[in-house]
Amino acid sequence: MKRFLIEGEHLIEEALKANVVETIITDTTCPFAFEEVVLVSEAVMKKVSQNVSKVHLIAVCKEVEVDLTKKERLLILDGVQDPGNLGTMVRTAMAFQFDAVYLSNQCADLYNDKTIRSTQGALFHMPVIRVKDELDCLVASLQEEGVNVVATTLDDAKPLKEVETCSKMAFILGNEGQGVSKSLQAMANQRLRIEMQGFESLNVAVAAGIVMYTFQERVK
Amino acid sequence: MKRFLIEGEHLIEEALKANVVETIITDTTCPFAFEEVVLVSEAVMKKVSQNVSKVHLIAVCKEVEVDLTKKERLLILDGVQDPGNLGTMVRTAMAFQFDAVYLSNQCADLYNDKTIRSTQGALFHMPVIRVKDELDCLVASLQEEGVNVVATTLDDAKPLKEVETCSKMAFILGNEGQGVSKSLQAMANQRLRIEMQGFESLNVAVAAGIVMYTFQERVK
Repeated sequence: MKRFLIEGEHLIEEALKANVVETIITDTTCPFAFEEVVLVSEAVMKKVSQNVSKVHLIAVCKEVEVDLTKKERLLILDGVQDPGNLGTMVRTAMAFQFDAVYLSNQCADLYNDKTIRSTQGALFHMPVIRVKDELDCLVASLQEEGVNVVATTLDDAKPLKEVETCSKMAFILGNEGQGVSKSLQAMANQRLRIEMQGFESLNVAVAAGIVMYTFQERVK
Repeated sequence: MKRFLIEGEHLIEEALKANVVETIITDTTCPFAFEEVVLVSEAVMKKVSQNVSKVHLIAVCKEVEVDLTKKERLLILDGVQDPGNLGTMVRTAMAFQFDAVYLSNQCADLYNDKTIRSTQGALFHMPVIRVKDELDCLVASLQEEGVNVVATTLDDAKPLKEVETCSKMAFILGNEGQGVSKSLQAMANQRLRIEMQGFESLNVAVAAGIVMYTFQERVK
Protein backbone atom coordinates (compact mmCIF):
# COMPACT_ATOMS: atom_id res chain seq x y z
CA MET A 1 0.00 0.00 0.00
CA LYS A 2 1.35 3.44 -0.93
CA ARG A 3 1.94 6.15 1.67
CA PHE A 4 1.95 9.95 1.51
CA LEU A 5 2.60 12.84 3.90
CA ILE A 6 0.25 15.61 4.99
CA GLU A 7 1.00 18.67 7.12
CA GLY A 8 -0.93 20.81 9.58
CA GLU A 9 -3.68 20.28 12.13
CA HIS A 10 -6.70 20.83 9.87
CA LEU A 11 -5.67 18.27 7.23
CA ILE A 12 -4.68 15.71 9.87
CA GLU A 13 -8.04 16.15 11.57
CA GLU A 14 -9.80 15.34 8.28
CA ALA A 15 -7.47 12.38 7.64
CA LEU A 16 -8.19 10.99 11.12
CA LYS A 17 -11.94 11.18 10.43
CA ALA A 18 -11.35 9.15 7.27
CA ASN A 19 -9.20 6.66 9.20
CA VAL A 20 -6.18 6.89 6.87
CA VAL A 21 -3.53 8.09 9.34
CA GLU A 22 -0.76 5.60 10.20
CA THR A 23 1.66 7.78 12.16
CA ILE A 24 1.74 11.35 13.45
CA ILE A 25 5.12 13.08 13.63
CA THR A 26 5.48 16.13 15.86
CA ASP A 27 8.09 18.30 17.59
CA THR A 28 5.57 19.40 20.23
CA THR A 29 2.58 17.76 21.92
CA CYS A 30 0.07 16.02 19.69
CA PRO A 31 -3.45 17.49 20.05
CA PHE A 32 -5.12 14.27 18.89
CA ALA A 33 -5.88 11.14 20.89
CA PHE A 34 -3.91 8.85 18.60
CA GLU A 35 -1.58 5.97 19.47
CA GLU A 36 1.16 6.12 16.85
CA VAL A 37 2.90 9.40 17.62
CA VAL A 38 6.62 9.95 16.98
CA LEU A 39 8.31 12.85 18.76
CA VAL A 40 11.16 14.41 16.75
CA SER A 41 13.41 17.49 17.05
CA GLU A 42 12.61 20.80 15.36
CA ALA A 43 15.49 20.17 12.94
CA VAL A 44 14.01 16.85 11.78
CA MET A 45 10.59 18.50 11.40
CA LYS A 46 12.08 21.22 9.23
CA LYS A 47 13.81 18.62 7.05
CA VAL A 48 10.65 16.58 6.50
CA SER A 49 8.27 19.51 5.94
CA GLN A 50 7.50 20.87 2.47
CA ASN A 51 6.38 24.19 3.92
CA VAL A 52 8.38 27.39 4.18
CA SER A 53 6.68 28.31 7.45
CA LYS A 54 7.13 26.15 10.55
CA VAL A 55 5.01 23.03 10.80
CA HIS A 56 4.53 21.12 14.06
CA LEU A 57 2.42 18.22 12.87
CA ILE A 58 2.98 15.85 9.96
CA ALA A 59 1.11 12.61 9.36
CA VAL A 60 1.94 9.54 7.32
CA CYS A 61 -1.25 8.45 5.54
CA LYS A 62 -2.13 5.43 3.47
CA GLU A 63 -3.72 5.63 0.04
CA VAL A 64 -7.20 4.18 0.15
CA GLU A 65 -8.54 1.65 -2.31
CA VAL A 66 -11.62 3.03 -4.00
CA ASP A 67 -14.68 0.86 -4.48
CA LEU A 68 -17.18 2.75 -6.58
CA THR A 69 -20.76 1.59 -6.67
CA LYS A 70 -22.67 4.83 -7.23
CA LYS A 71 -21.97 6.65 -10.50
CA GLU A 72 -24.60 9.36 -10.73
CA ARG A 73 -22.32 12.39 -10.78
CA LEU A 74 -18.75 12.04 -12.01
CA LEU A 75 -15.96 14.44 -12.89
CA ILE A 76 -13.33 13.43 -15.47
CA LEU A 77 -10.15 15.50 -15.70
CA ASP A 78 -8.23 15.36 -18.98
CA GLY A 79 -4.65 16.54 -18.36
CA VAL A 80 -5.17 19.17 -15.64
CA GLN A 81 -1.60 20.36 -14.95
CA ASP A 82 -1.87 22.72 -12.00
CA PRO A 83 -1.92 21.04 -8.54
CA GLY A 84 -4.00 23.93 -7.14
CA ASN A 85 -6.65 23.52 -9.83
CA LEU A 86 -6.72 19.75 -9.32
CA GLY A 87 -7.09 20.00 -5.54
CA THR A 88 -9.73 22.72 -5.80
CA MET A 89 -11.83 20.57 -8.13
CA VAL A 90 -11.69 17.61 -5.72
CA ARG A 91 -12.85 19.98 -2.94
CA THR A 92 -15.70 21.31 -5.11
CA ALA A 93 -16.74 17.79 -6.15
CA MET A 94 -17.12 16.96 -2.46
CA ALA A 95 -19.18 20.09 -1.74
CA PHE A 96 -21.60 19.25 -4.55
CA GLN A 97 -21.90 15.56 -3.69
CA PHE A 98 -20.17 14.13 -6.72
CA ASP A 99 -19.47 10.40 -6.50
CA ALA A 100 -15.93 10.35 -7.90
CA VAL A 101 -13.21 12.24 -9.75
CA TYR A 102 -11.26 10.45 -12.51
CA LEU A 103 -7.80 11.71 -13.47
CA SER A 104 -6.04 11.03 -16.77
CA ASN A 105 -2.42 9.91 -16.53
CA GLN A 106 -1.32 13.42 -17.63
CA CYS A 107 -2.94 15.13 -14.63
CA ALA A 108 -0.87 16.59 -11.78
CA ASP A 109 -0.04 14.34 -8.82
CA LEU A 110 -2.88 14.03 -6.32
CA TYR A 111 -0.35 13.54 -3.51
CA ASN A 112 1.63 16.67 -4.30
CA ASP A 113 1.71 18.93 -1.22
CA LYS A 114 -0.04 21.78 -3.08
CA THR A 115 -2.79 19.49 -4.39
CA ILE A 116 -3.47 18.05 -0.94
CA ARG A 117 -3.69 21.52 0.63
CA SER A 118 -6.06 22.73 -2.09
CA THR A 119 -8.45 19.84 -1.42
CA GLN A 120 -8.81 21.15 2.17
CA GLY A 121 -9.12 17.54 3.25
CA ALA A 122 -11.75 16.54 0.69
CA LEU A 123 -9.37 13.94 -0.80
CA PHE A 124 -9.80 11.81 2.33
CA HIS A 125 -13.53 11.49 1.73
CA MET A 126 -13.83 11.73 -2.06
CA PRO A 127 -13.02 8.78 -4.34
CA VAL A 128 -10.31 9.95 -6.76
CA ILE A 129 -9.20 7.44 -9.39
CA ARG A 130 -6.14 7.76 -11.63
CA VAL A 131 -6.95 6.12 -14.96
CA LYS A 132 -4.02 4.10 -16.30
CA ASP A 133 -5.20 3.71 -19.92
CA GLU A 134 -6.45 6.47 -22.17
CA LEU A 135 -9.63 8.21 -21.03
CA ASP A 136 -11.39 6.94 -24.20
CA CYS A 137 -11.71 3.47 -22.63
CA LEU A 138 -13.17 4.92 -19.42
CA VAL A 139 -15.69 7.04 -21.34
CA ALA A 140 -16.77 4.08 -23.47
CA SER A 141 -17.29 1.89 -20.41
CA LEU A 142 -19.23 4.60 -18.57
CA GLN A 143 -21.46 5.05 -21.61
CA GLU A 144 -22.15 1.30 -21.60
CA GLU A 145 -23.29 1.68 -17.98
CA GLY A 146 -25.78 4.36 -19.10
CA VAL A 147 -23.80 7.41 -17.99
CA ASN A 148 -24.40 10.54 -20.09
CA VAL A 149 -20.93 11.93 -20.78
CA VAL A 150 -20.71 15.69 -21.26
CA ALA A 151 -17.55 17.40 -22.57
CA THR A 152 -17.01 21.09 -21.75
CA THR A 153 -15.74 23.11 -24.71
CA LEU A 154 -16.17 26.44 -26.45
CA ASP A 155 -16.81 25.03 -29.95
CA ASP A 156 -20.04 23.64 -31.30
CA ALA A 157 -21.64 23.14 -27.90
CA LYS A 158 -24.94 23.65 -26.11
CA PRO A 159 -25.23 26.49 -23.60
CA LEU A 160 -25.07 25.14 -20.04
CA LYS A 161 -28.59 26.35 -19.24
CA GLU A 162 -30.02 24.19 -22.05
CA VAL A 163 -28.38 20.93 -21.00
CA GLU A 164 -30.93 18.61 -19.41
CA THR A 165 -30.25 16.85 -16.14
CA CYS A 166 -30.00 13.05 -16.43
CA SER A 167 -29.84 10.52 -13.62
CA LYS A 168 -26.22 9.55 -14.44
CA MET A 169 -23.85 12.23 -15.71
CA ALA A 170 -20.09 12.59 -16.14
CA PHE A 171 -18.44 15.93 -16.98
CA ILE A 172 -15.08 16.16 -18.75
CA LEU A 173 -12.92 19.21 -18.01
CA GLY A 174 -9.68 19.68 -19.87
CA ASN A 175 -6.11 20.90 -19.73
CA GLU A 176 -5.53 24.59 -18.82
CA GLY A 177 -4.18 25.42 -22.28
CA GLN A 178 -5.71 22.93 -24.70
CA GLY A 179 -9.04 22.10 -23.08
CA VAL A 180 -10.68 18.70 -23.62
CA SER A 181 -8.98 16.61 -26.32
CA LYS A 182 -10.74 16.38 -29.70
CA SER A 183 -11.18 12.61 -29.47
CA LEU A 184 -13.01 12.88 -26.13
CA GLN A 185 -15.15 15.74 -27.45
CA ALA A 186 -16.15 13.52 -30.36
CA MET A 187 -16.96 10.56 -28.08
CA ALA A 188 -19.06 12.53 -25.60
CA ASN A 189 -22.85 12.28 -25.65
CA GLN A 190 -23.10 16.05 -25.41
CA ARG A 191 -20.87 19.11 -25.57
CA LEU A 192 -21.54 21.96 -23.16
CA ARG A 193 -20.29 25.55 -23.07
CA ILE A 194 -20.56 28.03 -20.22
CA GLU A 195 -22.28 31.19 -21.49
CA MET A 196 -19.79 34.08 -21.55
CA GLN A 197 -19.53 37.34 -23.39
CA GLY A 198 -16.43 39.06 -24.65
CA PHE A 199 -13.54 37.40 -22.86
CA GLU A 200 -13.95 33.68 -23.57
CA SER A 201 -11.66 32.45 -20.87
CA LEU A 202 -12.27 30.83 -17.51
CA ASN A 203 -9.97 29.07 -15.07
CA VAL A 204 -10.67 25.32 -15.30
CA ALA A 205 -11.51 25.01 -11.58
CA VAL A 206 -13.99 27.88 -11.86
CA ALA A 207 -15.58 26.30 -14.96
CA ALA A 208 -15.81 22.96 -13.15
CA GLY A 209 -17.37 24.71 -10.14
CA ILE A 210 -20.11 26.27 -12.25
CA VAL A 211 -20.87 22.96 -13.96
CA MET A 212 -20.87 20.93 -10.72
CA TYR A 213 -23.02 23.50 -8.93
CA THR A 214 -25.57 23.34 -11.76
CA PHE A 215 -25.76 19.55 -11.81
CA GLN A 216 -25.08 18.82 -8.15
CA GLU A 217 -26.83 15.92 -6.59
CA ARG A 218 -29.81 16.96 -4.56
CA VAL A 219 -30.79 15.07 -1.46
CA LYS A 220 -33.96 13.23 -2.43
CA MET B 1 2.01 57.25 -12.61
CA LYS B 2 2.95 53.83 -11.21
CA ARG B 3 4.58 51.14 -13.36
CA PHE B 4 4.61 47.35 -13.22
CA LEU B 5 6.22 44.49 -15.14
CA ILE B 6 4.59 41.70 -17.08
CA GLU B 7 6.19 38.68 -18.72
CA GLY B 8 5.48 36.52 -21.76
CA GLU B 9 3.95 36.98 -25.20
CA HIS B 10 0.29 36.36 -24.32
CA LEU B 11 0.13 38.93 -21.50
CA ILE B 12 2.04 41.53 -23.53
CA GLU B 13 -0.36 41.03 -26.44
CA GLU B 14 -3.30 41.78 -24.11
CA ALA B 15 -1.51 44.79 -22.61
CA LEU B 16 -0.79 46.20 -26.08
CA LYS B 17 -4.50 45.91 -26.96
CA ALA B 18 -5.26 47.93 -23.84
CA ASN B 19 -2.58 50.46 -24.74
CA VAL B 20 -0.75 50.29 -21.40
CA VAL B 21 2.70 49.17 -22.59
CA GLU B 22 5.53 51.71 -22.29
CA THR B 23 8.58 49.61 -23.10
CA ILE B 24 9.25 46.07 -24.24
CA ILE B 25 12.47 44.40 -23.04
CA THR B 26 13.76 41.38 -24.94
CA ASP B 27 16.87 39.27 -25.46
CA THR B 28 15.67 38.16 -28.90
CA THR B 29 13.56 39.75 -31.64
CA CYS B 30 10.33 41.41 -30.62
CA PRO B 31 7.30 39.85 -32.35
CA PHE B 32 5.23 43.04 -31.97
CA ALA B 33 5.25 46.16 -34.12
CA PHE B 34 6.08 48.48 -31.22
CA GLU B 35 8.51 51.40 -31.10
CA GLU B 36 9.97 51.28 -27.60
CA VAL B 37 11.95 48.06 -27.60
CA VAL B 38 15.10 47.59 -25.52
CA LEU B 39 17.42 44.72 -26.47
CA VAL B 40 19.27 43.21 -23.49
CA SER B 41 21.50 40.19 -22.84
CA GLU B 42 20.18 36.84 -21.63
CA ALA B 43 21.84 37.52 -18.24
CA VAL B 44 19.94 40.80 -17.78
CA MET B 45 16.70 39.09 -18.80
CA LYS B 46 17.25 36.36 -16.22
CA LYS B 47 17.91 38.98 -13.53
CA VAL B 48 14.73 40.95 -14.29
CA SER B 49 12.41 37.97 -14.73
CA GLN B 50 10.33 36.56 -11.85
CA ASN B 51 9.96 33.25 -13.64
CA VAL B 52 11.96 30.09 -13.06
CA SER B 53 11.74 29.14 -16.73
CA LYS B 54 13.33 31.34 -19.40
CA VAL B 55 11.44 34.42 -20.49
CA HIS B 56 12.28 36.34 -23.68
CA LEU B 57 9.79 39.19 -23.43
CA ILE B 58 9.09 41.55 -20.54
CA ALA B 59 7.06 44.74 -20.74
CA VAL B 60 6.93 47.82 -18.54
CA CYS B 61 3.27 48.82 -18.19
CA LYS B 62 1.56 51.81 -16.65
CA GLU B 63 -1.27 51.56 -14.15
CA VAL B 64 -4.43 52.93 -15.68
CA GLU B 65 -6.73 55.42 -13.96
CA VAL B 66 -10.19 53.95 -13.67
CA ASP B 67 -13.23 56.03 -14.47
CA LEU B 68 -16.31 54.09 -13.54
CA THR B 69 -19.66 55.17 -14.90
CA LYS B 70 -21.55 51.88 -15.16
CA LYS B 71 -22.20 50.06 -11.88
CA GLU B 72 -24.64 47.29 -12.70
CA ARG B 73 -22.48 44.31 -11.73
CA LEU B 74 -19.74 44.74 -9.16
CA LEU B 75 -17.48 42.39 -7.23
CA ILE B 76 -16.13 43.45 -3.83
CA LEU B 77 -13.26 41.46 -2.31
CA ASP B 78 -12.83 41.62 1.46
CA GLY B 79 -9.28 40.51 2.34
CA VAL B 80 -8.60 37.90 -0.35
CA GLN B 81 -5.03 36.78 0.46
CA ASP B 82 -4.04 34.44 -2.33
CA PRO B 83 -2.73 36.12 -5.52
CA GLY B 84 -3.98 33.20 -7.64
CA ASN B 85 -7.51 33.54 -6.25
CA LEU B 86 -7.46 37.31 -6.75
CA GLY B 87 -6.27 37.08 -10.37
CA THR B 88 -8.72 34.29 -11.16
CA MET B 89 -11.64 36.40 -9.89
CA VAL B 90 -10.61 39.36 -12.06
CA ARG B 91 -10.49 36.97 -15.04
CA THR B 92 -13.95 35.57 -14.21
CA ALA B 93 -15.40 39.07 -13.70
CA MET B 94 -14.28 39.90 -17.23
CA ALA B 95 -15.81 36.73 -18.71
CA PHE B 96 -19.17 37.49 -17.11
CA GLN B 97 -19.21 41.19 -18.03
CA PHE B 98 -18.84 42.65 -14.57
CA ASP B 99 -18.21 46.40 -14.51
CA ALA B 100 -15.53 46.51 -11.81
CA VAL B 101 -13.74 44.67 -9.00
CA TYR B 102 -13.10 46.51 -5.70
CA LEU B 103 -10.30 45.30 -3.43
CA SER B 104 -10.03 46.01 0.29
CA ASN B 105 -6.65 47.19 1.53
CA GLN B 106 -6.01 43.73 3.01
CA CYS B 107 -6.24 42.00 -0.39
CA ALA B 108 -3.17 40.60 -2.16
CA ASP B 109 -1.26 42.88 -4.55
CA LEU B 110 -2.86 43.13 -7.99
CA TYR B 111 0.56 43.67 -9.55
CA ASN B 112 2.12 40.58 -7.99
CA ASP B 113 3.50 38.35 -10.77
CA LYS B 114 1.23 35.46 -9.77
CA THR B 115 -1.87 37.68 -9.69
CA ILE B 116 -1.15 39.12 -13.13
CA ARG B 117 -0.63 35.66 -14.63
CA SER B 118 -3.87 34.38 -13.08
CA THR B 119 -5.86 37.21 -14.68
CA GLN B 120 -4.71 35.92 -18.10
CA GLY B 121 -4.64 39.53 -19.25
CA ALA B 122 -8.11 40.47 -17.94
CA LEU B 123 -6.59 43.10 -15.63
CA PHE B 124 -5.77 45.25 -18.68
CA HIS B 125 -9.44 45.49 -19.63
CA MET B 126 -11.21 45.22 -16.29
CA PRO B 127 -11.47 48.17 -13.89
CA VAL B 128 -9.93 47.05 -10.59
CA ILE B 129 -10.04 49.56 -7.75
CA ARG B 130 -8.14 49.29 -4.46
CA VAL B 131 -10.25 50.90 -1.74
CA LYS B 132 -8.16 52.97 0.66
CA ASP B 133 -10.70 53.32 3.49
CA GLU B 134 -12.68 50.53 5.07
CA LEU B 135 -15.10 48.72 2.75
CA ASP B 136 -18.00 49.94 4.94
CA CYS B 137 -17.75 53.40 3.34
CA LEU B 138 -17.77 51.94 -0.17
CA VAL B 139 -20.78 49.76 0.59
CA ALA B 140 -22.69 52.69 2.07
CA SER B 141 -22.01 54.88 -0.94
CA LEU B 142 -22.97 52.14 -3.40
CA GLN B 143 -26.22 51.62 -1.51
CA GLU B 144 -26.93 55.35 -1.83
CA GLU B 145 -26.52 54.96 -5.58
CA GLY B 146 -29.18 52.23 -5.55
CA VAL B 147 -26.86 49.22 -5.75
CA ASN B 148 -28.19 46.08 -4.07
CA VAL B 149 -25.26 44.76 -2.02
CA VAL B 150 -25.17 41.00 -1.46
CA ALA B 151 -22.77 39.35 0.99
CA THR B 152 -21.87 35.68 0.48
CA THR B 153 -21.85 33.68 3.71
CA LEU B 154 -22.86 30.34 5.18
CA ASP B 155 -24.89 31.73 8.12
CA ASP B 156 -28.42 33.04 8.02
CA ALA B 157 -28.52 33.50 4.26
CA LYS B 158 -30.82 32.93 1.31
CA PRO B 159 -30.00 30.09 -1.11
CA LEU B 160 -28.43 31.46 -4.31
CA LYS B 161 -31.33 30.18 -6.46
CA GLU B 162 -33.81 32.29 -4.47
CA VAL B 163 -31.96 35.60 -4.79
CA GLU B 164 -33.70 37.88 -7.25
CA THR B 165 -31.81 39.66 -10.01
CA CYS B 166 -31.77 43.46 -9.66
CA SER B 167 -30.56 46.01 -12.18
CA LYS B 168 -27.62 47.04 -9.97
CA MET B 169 -25.89 44.43 -7.84
CA ALA B 170 -22.61 44.14 -5.93
CA PHE B 171 -21.37 40.83 -4.48
CA ILE B 172 -19.00 40.67 -1.52
CA LEU B 173 -16.66 37.69 -1.31
CA GLY B 174 -14.43 37.26 1.71
CA ASN B 175 -11.08 36.14 3.02
CA GLU B 176 -10.10 32.46 2.45
CA GLY B 177 -10.23 31.65 6.15
CA GLN B 178 -12.67 34.09 7.75
CA GLY B 179 -15.08 34.84 4.92
CA VAL B 180 -16.87 38.20 4.74
CA SER B 181 -16.46 40.31 7.89
CA LYS B 182 -19.42 40.49 10.27
CA SER B 183 -19.83 44.25 9.86
CA LEU B 184 -20.16 43.95 6.07
CA GLN B 185 -22.56 41.04 6.43
CA ALA B 186 -24.70 43.23 8.67
CA MET B 187 -24.60 46.18 6.26
CA ALA B 188 -25.46 44.18 3.14
CA ASN B 189 -28.98 44.35 1.68
CA GLN B 190 -29.02 40.57 1.37
CA ARG B 191 -26.98 37.55 2.41
CA LEU B 192 -26.56 34.70 -0.03
CA ARG B 193 -25.28 31.14 0.39
CA ILE B 194 -24.33 28.67 -2.30
CA GLU B 195 -26.34 25.49 -1.83
CA MET B 196 -24.04 22.65 -0.74
CA GLN B 197 -24.46 19.37 1.02
CA GLY B 198 -22.12 17.72 3.45
CA PHE B 199 -18.77 19.44 2.98
CA GLU B 200 -19.51 23.16 3.46
CA SER B 201 -16.35 24.46 1.90
CA LEU B 202 -15.60 26.07 -1.45
CA ASN B 203 -12.55 27.89 -2.75
CA VAL B 204 -13.36 31.62 -2.85
CA ALA B 205 -12.64 31.94 -6.59
CA VAL B 206 -14.96 29.00 -7.31
CA ALA B 207 -17.69 30.54 -5.13
CA ALA B 208 -17.26 33.90 -6.90
CA GLY B 209 -17.43 32.12 -10.27
CA ILE B 210 -20.75 30.48 -9.43
CA VAL B 211 -22.22 33.77 -8.20
CA MET B 212 -20.96 35.82 -11.16
CA TYR B 213 -22.14 33.20 -13.67
CA THR B 214 -25.61 33.29 -12.11
CA PHE B 215 -25.90 37.08 -12.14
CA GLN B 216 -23.81 37.84 -15.23
CA GLU B 217 -24.86 40.73 -17.36
CA ARG B 218 -26.73 39.65 -20.44
CA VAL B 219 -26.42 41.58 -23.66
CA LYS B 220 -29.76 43.33 -24.04
